[in-house]
Amino acid sequence: MRLDTLSVTRSHGGTQHVVKHRSDATGTDMTFSVFVPPQADEGALCPVIWYLSGLTCTHANVTEKGEYRRACAELGLIFVAPDTSPRGPDVPDDPAYDFGQGAGFYLDATEEPFARDYRMDSYLSSELPAVIEHTFPADLSRQGVTGHSMGGHGALTLALREPDRYRSVSAFAPIVAPSQVPWGQKALSRYLGPDPSGWRRHDAVALIEDGARVPEILVDQGTSDDFLERELRPELLANACSEAGIPLTLRMQQGYDHSYYFISTFMADHLRWHAERLG
Amino acid sequence: MRLDTLSVTRSHGGTQHVVKHRSDATGTDMTFSVFVPPQADEGALCPVIWYLSGLTCTHANVTEKGEYRRACAELGLIFVAPDTSPRGPDVPDDPAYDFGQGAGFYLDATEEPFARDYRMDSYLSSELPAVIEHTFPADLSRQGVTGHSMGGHGALTLALREPDRYRSVSAFAPIVAPSQVPWGQKALSRYLGPDPSGWRRHDAVALIEDGARVPEILVDQGTSDDFLERELRPELLANACSEAGIPLTLRMQQGYDHSYYFISTFMADHLRWHAERLG
Repeated sequence: MRLDTLSVTRSHGGTQHVVKHRSDATGTDMTFSVFVPPQADEGALCPVIWYLSGLTCTHANVTEKGEYRRACAELGLIFVAPDTSPRGPDVPDDPAYDFGQGAGFYLDATEEPFARDYRMDSYLSSELPAVIEHTFPADLSRQGVTGHSMGGHGALTLALREPDRYRSVSAFAPIVAPSQVPWGQKALSRYLGPDPSGWRRHDAVALIEDGARVPEILVDQGTSDDFLERELRPELLANACSEAGIPLTLRMQQGYDHSYYFISTFMADHLRWHAERLG
Repeated sequence: MRLDTLSVTRSHGGTQHVVKHRSDATGTDMTFSVFVPPQADEGALCPVIWYLSGLTCTHANVTEKGEYRRACAELGLIFVAPDTSPRGPDVPDDPAYDFGQGAGFYLDATEEPFARDYRMDSYLSSELPAVIEHTFPADLSRQGVTGHSMGGHGALTLALREPDRYRSVSAFAPIVAPSQVPWGQKALSRYLGPDPSGWRRHDAVALIEDGARVPEILVDQGTSDDFLERELRPELLANACSEAGIPLTLRMQQGYDHSYYFISTFMADHLRWHAERLG
């Protein structure tokens, strides 16, 4: 396991790492960031929060703009921010911002030409956790997952498929039902093929309809988010949770948009919520 | 007074504005950001913190990475981040990162070809405050100033020249004695001419030696800052303050570098410090 440490920077009493490594899952170099809180200096193994980013993002967006370090330092949380897709000149891409590189949708593609590289589900479910556990003082018995927009979709679907692994889940302005909205239909059909029955394990609402369960969910959603009605549609998640008996805290945040100005505002709330559940 | 509002975004309960306007002082378009805290919604006039950025920065660096909004929202502070120089194809520039556009050093240049546009002192001392007072719920009887690196130099020198205007002053890793360090010698000689006696009102240590006084100063400085020994030299400020009887709180922060990871860590401390002094 060879890792290239791109930077290690003191911040908020802990240490912000940016690391590049060769991924077996994607067959490409992948870059991620990890914040290690000061509690680790005293030898503690710390719970891990996975933050999955939205369309077009890399690890850098939340690392620079997410305002998570102060709360992670207070709460003793390791914060991991992976990239959103494989990248590189040999990785199939698309000129659109919402497909291809920067838009991996946290699944393993089955369709050509994407099947070889677009394996973010495998990357996040097994390869990267092993890297984190090997390299940082991480307690993988205490993992929570959150994310934004496409990354909110990733967080919800990963947690619904593996509720024993992710003991807490939240999301910022998530895509909750990709099978029912343009961003998702475009991505799922091209990564997974035209048959919507193959999309259901990558759709939070469909997973819940099919019996997947998590103990509870926290979602913040801005009311001035340009993507609210067409792409995000939190009411679909609210209905599914209601029918399934999953406690959903859905907070409609007045006047907030889809940007990191919104995410950073509620980041500390989410981290406290996870910390309470991860012990 | 014509202002172009480039964006208005809800964040941390307040509103982050980015504004462009034509500056009479510089003869160019200038862009700045202003965070207005929620207290303004109830009609309160709020104290103003000026944040002056370092070499190469625009308003955007601190606006994205500074992590000031939460504390400003709690404390009821307006936070203004100006650009670091005039900019544009007609503005004299230099290929170096530490001179010309992005490196205005918060002075009015007297040398050609810079004298026409490089008038950041006039811009910050009179033009921009009038814009802020006219446009935002700002109480200009309560202004504090802070900044980073070259902007720390700006904050210290503006406050030392106008202690009645800026009732509180702090800095992050400031250039404290530009006359004595390479960054400053290069900039001051080319903006102000070769005679160092003309540089003294743009040098915090020289201003103090020449009798300028402020009630007290807060400075944070990382011990792992690559520019510490060659460009920043906080001991020169410590000596000058000691001889002048100016209470200086100089905090050497173990392991911190010169980046926004450092600034954002101590931003809330500085804002609280200013708020206590601005009432």
